Amino acid sequence: MTRVTLAVDAMGGDFGPHVTVPAVLQALGTYPFLEIYLVGFLDTLQPLLVKADSSLLTRLHCVNAESVITSDVKPSLAIRQSKNSSMRLALELVKENKAQACLSAGDTGTLMGLALMLLKSLPQIRRPALMGLLPNPSQGQMVILDIGANLDADCEMLVQFALMGHVVAEQMLGIATPRIALLNVGQEESKGKESIRQAAKILRQQSAIRYTGFLEGSELLTGRADVVVCDGFSGNVALKTLEGAIRFFLRRTEESHSVWRRLTQTLFSRSTDKIDPDKHNGAFLLGLSGVVIKSHGAANQQAFLAAIEQSILTVQRQLSQRVAGQLATVVARSDKT
Amino acid sequence: MTRVTLAVDAMGGDFGPHVTVPAVLQALGTYPFLEIYLVGFLDTLQPLLVKADSSLLTRLHCVNAESVITSDVKPSLAIRQSKNSSMRLALELVKENKAQACLSAGDTGTLMGLALMLLKSLPQIRRPALMGLLPNPSQGQMVILDIGANLDADCEMLVQFALMGHVVAEQMLGIATPRIALLNVGQEESKGKESIRQAAKILRQQSAIRYTGFLEGSELLTGRADVVVCDGFSGNVALKTLEGAIRFFLRRTEESHSVWRRLTQTLFSRSTDKIDPDKHNGAFLLGLSGVVIKSHGAANQQAFLAAIEQSILTVQRQLSQRVAGQLATVVARSDKT
Repeated sequence: MTRVTLAVDAMGGDFGPHVTVPAVLQALGTYPFLEIYLVGFLDTLQPLLVKADSSLLTRLHCVNAESVITSDVKPSLAIRQSKNSSMRLALELVKENKAQACLSAGDTGTLMGLALMLLKSLPQIRRPALMGLLPNPSQGQMVILDIGANLDADCEMLVQFALMGHVVAEQMLGIATPRIALLNVGQEESKGKESIRQAAKILRQQSAIRYTGFLEGSELLTGRADVVVCDGFSGNVALKTLEGAIRFFLRRTEESHSVWRRLTQTLFSRSTDKIDPDKHNGAFLLGLSGVVIKSHGAANQQAFLAAIEQSILTVQRQLSQRVAGQLATVVARSDKT
Repeated sequence: MTRVTLAVDAMGGDFGPHVTVPAVLQALGTYPFLEIYLVGFLDTLQPLLVKADSSLLTRLHCVNAESVITSDVKPSLAIRQSKNSSMRLALELVKENKAQACLSAGDTGTLMGLALMLLKSLPQIRRPALMGLLPNPSQGQMVILDIGANLDADCEMLVQFALMGHVVAEQMLGIATPRIALLNVGQEESKGKESIRQAAKILRQQSAIRYTGFLEGSELLTGRADVVVCDGFSGNVALKTLEGAIRFFLRRTEESHSVWRRLTQTLFSRSTDKIDPDKHNGAFLLGLSGVVIKSHGAANQQAFLAAIEQSILTVQRQLSQRVAGQLATVVARSDKT
């Protein structure tokens, strides 16, 4: 299989190397075609690698960083101070074509800002968006964007998110004509913020995509849409609320009676797997000339491994290139309508 | 028991009188102290009342409306055209002190605008907020506001919502020093919109309340806060997403195997009851000189009955008067700090 090379920011997230290093080693063990640049404090990383199988280490390259961008600093300041930080060095490995994707569990706003500065956005896109996948209980998955890269989104941004979401659902999830919806507080045309109502007007006129109207939070698990478009603040709230609720139910199931647990495993195994947030991780920063994947900050080893796997898939499917290519076509078609 | 008189907008919501009338009759049958003004098209209401127990009808007063405010009209326009509409007439019954509370499942924005125009806000409050209750899995319930009355909220509004939430959690839920949190995309001080970060700064300095920091969507079911404060758009998204997820799991439980169902009933009965959105309905429009309760638009008979019961409780506990009184004290104390 063709080699896949990732640059991993080892220091990001709530648990840093204690989660990222074991997950990276597990991934190297599972995927023989995988090569990883592990960026972080060598002093911290090396003790965590001493017991690792030496055959894996031939595909692991440690890169020393001099600082870590923590989540308690405002992105604008963090970016100014980012030189030789683990996040920036990981992104630079992508810029220099040494790695095909960068994965970080660090601060979303800073990752977005640095990625935009170093890798630039696609010509049709004003602001990249962070895209997440939600389980679609009836079949497969659905796309939600933005989930936190832009806390506010005006009409133009929402329309661009919709076009990017269309391409991803088509190219990544294999959905022929994905149904696109705008997240809103009601279904009627008159509902919601001006920016959303304006975006709806524009999207309704686009022949290039299949816009299906407003969608409320309560409909996220009904399978009514393939792409849910929103600003980064409400998308983040929706995604995390859903994850919290799913965790609440799964944990309750696990804690309970053993008969119950066995029944759960028999009846629900496929579906709970499909909706377990620890088994779905890795949000794609969409609209950049390069692949950047964001793991959620609280990821445990299993979840960080899921994000590595998501990064591998994104590279293997050449998603970034296909989005760039398709987007040009869709934008050209949508401009005509 | 002291009489409770409600004005019910019979025409609001997705199903109008077909849901509101049976729920009203059920409530009158259950609560002998209840009296209801039912506002709607008499031609529509009367056929639905012919089979009702005549003893109930002595406590039911039908009021004829000439129009209905539908959810597909922008609030500003709907308010201009609201004369003799069922929603407005129901609110006027409160203004004229004929009813102690108004209940409607109609459009939130219009209800908010009309209520503000007819009943006025409390002197300390710039904009009323729609308050919802969420199940707190560990104990009782928690307050969330705003859930849709104000799609945007600046710093001052968020601070006022926090103060109102404090009073409601104390007076309605009996929580001695309620923990107040701001809904945000991360927990660190640097995260989120400027308005939220500014509100956090102000709330941290208030000795009158117990501010506990930012809360993410994923923490809504962890019981970490008693009051969750947010703008109406993200609050609506959070609440509805949670409701959708809960419905998804409860439905799945109901549909499945009978052994599973029996086990659910044995193990989960109390807790699923606590978190079933159909058994919790009725959002309080907080900060007005009068009691206005909003039922969600898609309410079925059971859910609308729950909203009637919520309205009764709000009146019986004199919540509106207690909020007004306490708010004056809290605002005075917070102004000093």
